[in-house]
Amino acid sequence: MTDRLRIAVLGASGYTGADLVRLAITHPRMEIAALAANAKAGQTMAAIWPHFAPYPALPALVKADEIDFSGIDAVFGCLPHAASAELLSGLPGQRIIDLSADFRLKDAGTYADWYGVAHPAPELLAGAVYGLTEFARRSLPAARIVACPGCYPTAVLLALLPLVASHAISAERITVNALSGVSGAGRGLKEANLFPEVAEAVHPYGIGRHRHMPEMEQELSLRAGRDVTISFTPHLVPMNRGELVTIVVETAHGVDYLREVLADAYIAEPFVHLLPIGVAPATRMVRGSNHVVINVFADRVPGRAIVIAAIDNLVKGSSGQAVQNFNLMFGLPETMGLEQAPLFP
Amino acid sequence: MTDRLRIAVLGASGYTGADLVRLAITHPRMEIAALAANAKAGQTMAAIWPHFAPYPALPALVKADEIDFSGIDAVFGCLPHAASAELLSGLPGQRIIDLSADFRLKDAGTYADWYGVAHPAPELLAGAVYGLTEFARRSLPAARIVACPGCYPTAVLLALLPLVASHAISAERITVNALSGVSGAGRGLKEANLFPEVAEAVHPYGIGRHRHMPEMEQELSLRAGRDVTISFTPHLVPMNRGELVTIVVETAHGVDYLREVLADAYIAEPFVHLLPIGVAPATRMVRGSNHVVINVFADRVPGRAIVIAAIDNLVKGSSGQAVQNFNLMFGLPETMGLEQAPLFP
Amino acid sequence: MTDRLRIAVLGASGYTGADLVRLAITHPRMEIAALAANAKAGQTMAAIWPHFAPYPALPALVKADEIDFSGIDAVFGCLPHAASAELLSGLPGQRIIDLSADFRLKDAGTYADWYGVAHPAPELLAGAVYGLTEFARRSLPAARIVACPGCYPTAVLLALLPLVASHAISAERITVNALSGVSGAGRGLKEANLFPEVAEAVHPYGIGRHRHMPEMEQELSLRAGRDVTISFTPHLVPMNRGELVTIVVETAHGVDYLREVLADAYIAEPFVHLLPIGVAPATRMVRGSNHVVINVFADRVPGRAIVIAAIDNLVKGSSGQAVQNFNLMFGLPETMGLEQAPLFP
Amino acid sequence: MTDRLRIAVLGASGYTGADLVRLAITHPRMEIAALAANAKAGQTMAAIWPHFAPYPALPALVKADEIDFSGIDAVFGCLPHAASAELLSGLPGQRIIDLSADFRLKDAGTYADWYGVAHPAPELLAGAVYGLTEFARRSLPAARIVACPGCYPTAVLLALLPLVASHAISAERITVNALSGVSGAGRGLKEANLFPEVAEAVHPYGIGRHRHMPEMEQELSLRAGRDVTISFTPHLVPMNRGELVTIVVETAHGVDYLREVLADAYIAEPFVHLLPIGVAPATRMVRGSNHVVINVFADRVPGRAIVIAAIDNLVKGSSGQAVQNFNLMFGLPETMGLEQAPLFP
Repeated sequence: MTDRLRIAVLGASGYTGADLVRLAITHPRMEIAALAANAKAGQTMAAIWPHFAPYPALPALVKADEIDFSGIDAVFGCLPHAASAELLSGLPGQRIIDLSADFRLKDAGTYADWYGVAHPAPELLAGAVYGLTEFARRSLPAARIVACPGCYPTAVLLALLPLVASHAISAERITVNALSGVSGAGRGLKEANLFPEVAEAVHPYGIGRHRHMPEMEQELSLRAGRDVTISFTPHLVPMNRGELVTIVVETAHGVDYLREVLADAYIAEPFVHLLPIGVAPATRMVRGSNHVVINVFADRVPGRAIVIAAIDNLVKGSSGQAVQNFNLMFGLPETMGLEQAPLFP
Repeated sequence: MTDRLRIAVLGASGYTGADLVRLAITHPRMEIAALAANAKAGQTMAAIWPHFAPYPALPALVKADEIDFSGIDAVFGCLPHAASAELLSGLPGQRIIDLSADFRLKDAGTYADWYGVAHPAPELLAGAVYGLTEFARRSLPAARIVACPGCYPTAVLLALLPLVASHAISAERITVNALSGVSGAGRGLKEANLFPEVAEAVHPYGIGRHRHMPEMEQELSLRAGRDVTISFTPHLVPMNRGELVTIVVETAHGVDYLREVLADAYIAEPFVHLLPIGVAPATRMVRGSNHVVINVFADRVPGRAIVIAAIDNLVKGSSGQAVQNFNLMFGLPETMGLEQAPLFP
Repeated sequence: MTDRLRIAVLGASGYTGADLVRLAITHPRMEIAALAANAKAGQTMAAIWPHFAPYPALPALVKADEIDFSGIDAVFGCLPHAASAELLSGLPGQRIIDLSADFRLKDAGTYADWYGVAHPAPELLAGAVYGLTEFARRSLPAARIVACPGCYPTAVLLALLPLVASHAISAERITVNALSGVSGAGRGLKEANLFPEVAEAVHPYGIGRHRHMPEMEQELSLRAGRDVTISFTPHLVPMNRGELVTIVVETAHGVDYLREVLADAYIAEPFVHLLPIGVAPATRMVRGSNHVVINVFADRVPGRAIVIAAIDNLVKGSSGQAVQNFNLMFGLPETMGLEQAPLFP
Repeated sequence: MTDRLRIAVLGASGYTGADLVRLAITHPRMEIAALAANAKAGQTMAAIWPHFAPYPALPALVKADEIDFSGIDAVFGCLPHAASAELLSGLPGQRIIDLSADFRLKDAGTYADWYGVAHPAPELLAGAVYGLTEFARRSLPAARIVACPGCYPTAVLLALLPLVASHAISAERITVNALSGVSGAGRGLKEANLFPEVAEAVHPYGIGRHRHMPEMEQELSLRAGRDVTISFTPHLVPMNRGELVTIVVETAHGVDYLREVLADAYIAEPFVHLLPIGVAPATRMVRGSNHVVINVFADRVPGRAIVIAAIDNLVKGSSGQAVQNFNLMFGLPETMGLEQAPLFP
């Protein structure tokens, strides 16, 4: 085990924390050194997670402040926003892969506006790398803090960044309709997420004011070289995992050209796949994997096109991308521990 | 039973046919005189439908041409397109409520373009009433043929017609994102609709070219007084019933005004409900019922608003609206047989 | 409205309470006079239930002690055990239909053993009628308190009582395997009932010690004329509604004879249906309705048979049976307000 | 690639075939040399399977008789029964892992009775190894044909074999209740497996006469040293994957003893896990993995106990066990390619 990097997962009692542990179990260069979850400290992972029943040897949960960080190489933060920055900013120097929202926005004022609290460590924002892996490769090897994008931003930005950066589409009137599985809502106790409330039903939420908006707009604006504001409406779909974004854009170009731009951008990517002409992205194409599928379609309205992307919200939209970033931060092959094929059916 | 109107249902082996029979069973003025389904003729309804197991006395299925139409007051057509017009156009004079696409489009050329066949009875198109009940009340009492709208058009048009007619929103750049339960795909044998293909997954289909488009555009154009072309992307959601449309529109007005227009339009409607400010429409609000819920939200992009509506695709989106139309055609109370509250959970 | 009976529903914020209100809305002889739910007092039903969004005129929720019971004809108790008996035992004299466990067991000691609390009103137990409607018809018209059976007991007892009473099957070695939808677990906040925990999964619970056991054994013993102890294992299935029990019994008779006994018992029943030979009961046959479907099958092991029954746990297993009992208590037609056909798909 | 074993998968258009390919993609010692599916020959895997969209380089489908078997080391048969034996029996000498029913039963007469056709190659039955891996380890290295057990037999036999072999339980009155996800029904076009028929519902099937019965009885009889006949009722549950068996047994011993027997039997097993006392097996503990979870519970009826086991029907119940067998046949580590942790949620 001497060639393994020792990791700590803070927030191992949530869905993203658990999915990180799932991936870490088979990652050939990770050693799970510590698992923290304050409210469930003292319990085993098998006691709080059904799928870890076959893994009784996993470290038991501890409180975050009980961890001896001196022997830890990397810390994965799977905590709620604000709590995350507060805890992580006090660490002595470990490399940090944060899955919360705390290091995604460059502007502390924007953070305060959208999250309703002052940022606990604004001095760290400038140095943090926005870890949309495919667009952050150069910065990752030297980064101390990597902020993994939100699940919706991951899908939307992978679909749009090459098109916006090359001015293949207009930066105005971008209309995103998004669909997410229920795991995206977290494991917190909310009546709205009980099975009978969600099953056999669908509804929108966060209409016109979802917290992933500023993050998408920040990155789109950066690439477009101008301020971008988007329409974004997420919906809750009765499935565990998966996320699909359907984006109507305005463009002077045809579908072939937009596909060419995306093909060029992603030709060498191991996880991002432009589908053949006419094939509709579907969440079942990527379930349980770090893959992303994208395609572009002609719209009936002239001057418009429809760009669609699908991911697994817990993998490429969260823990998988975190592992992908970890790999690059530590000079490992990018796909290490992320090779498994999607699970269907 | 002498005060009952005798009905025949053609296509009683499909989901819309079955939902019509479900409603007819308890409709106080309907008598189910004949049920036809050519491929399953000779079988009982209980043999081909689980939920009719408690109703062994329902008429057995026959072939359509075995029905003695002389004693029939109304015929419900639940057949595939083209087959429907072909059969219905030969009837001696019964009043017809057609749930297929065959009498929805006024222009036989448009029909041929979208459905790939010449219309079997173009001479009947002019006289057919487009049966979006709330906008067809004056025409229904005298109508011989009523064409029930498609499920998506029902939701979209109820959400938009008052806004377009009053010019509260622009007729340009209407962007519709739609979500439907799997029953909308019918009971035909398609690998794509097997449980393991659809469950725990979501995907778009008919991107940029769904057959409900010309129907929506026909009615929107009529109210707008100009040609309207819309963006429309439907998605398949892993649930049996339910349909939700999320529509981004351009408008010079605020949400309050748009809500006012809709409130005025629907204040006396028994089935169309403008929700309180901020309450998101959800399919679980209407499951199994003829109700429609609608609301309007501010978008983050200035000059835009988001209009959302939810229906049960098999009830208000199909068989329920057919019964609603039947009631008005025969001078009965509009809500008769449609009173049952939504089923939740 | 003068010919309507005024009802109060205590516990209208739970799934059984809500399903009772759903049925009451269209019951021609009920007037919903008061709806109570202490924790949600002051809110509207539309605010806490999606499917009552179209019914803004329903009475708002109050605390139970704010109700003026003097004008109430019947009280439906949809409260948790113990709380129910405590509250109901203090009522001045209204007729009570209780859906909790509190008045089902005749023996206060057994109650204390299984529910872990002393019975709040043991003096009322003797007079309470066990409201398995089909076997309680004679007692219902004069009953003051009717205890509606648990959902599992309803299905199991309807399947077995005629067979046990006629000694067509042995009272020994009855093995019940039961499957229930998640609504049976209630609307309380439990991590175990979040959508992602339950969806795409199945598991047993309450193995060997479920609280519905003493109730089933009490009624079986009564009919068998001897003590009956059964094996009973319930499982949670990822669906909202529905309950199916698969019962292996020992018998000296063939399937035909067992079917005959059941056919005789239920020939005149409006809601209990013995299916044709070989047709397997399924929850989809009864979803959203008060119907019960039953059948008997030969087992591969000689001397055994398999009896299977399906109900909707919230309707015949709870609120529907409560309305059925109400009808008989007040001399109304037994099927009043319960006519609607099952909802499929 | 020279150290890889070249495999062919016959029947790669079905769910078991696809799950085998999913596992083969990341198996470090497998090379997918050929994929056959007669009805879909000429198509790519990505065209017929959503989850292979990210794997456009997989071999395209061919007809089985187009394969040059001379360069193939192992053949996985994922074909329907009869077709499988017919095709496999003609192979020149490759080692065969068959996932069909064709080589499971030792007696060709029993096969004919249950499958309705004469066995196509009865001379091969004696030599075939019944590949319930944990009980076949000694025979696998030298086996030419390995018959992977059915999904239900895998779960039932792993739960019962040690108990029966040690006479810890009676070989009489074994009552199995089984629950399976819909993928177990295959990808064939059947109305009964359409999403709206199955979702939000549960029902038994094959009551008293399921084809997995003789296979279970054969192996149980072998270990018990006497003829064993069991009661077995499978049910279809609305989930993609997963299988759970709840078995009521008669025993003179207590739960502790039965647990001890199982603990002894499986202490060194990498995939079979006896859960801690009182923890109920659940399919979500094993989804997408080759793990098995088992536990024993006291029954309320004296002299009985309840043994429960859960597997993923497509992995340990089919393709995963096939890979496990392949590993042992070729002298590889048993867990190779099967390390991935269960997917939850």
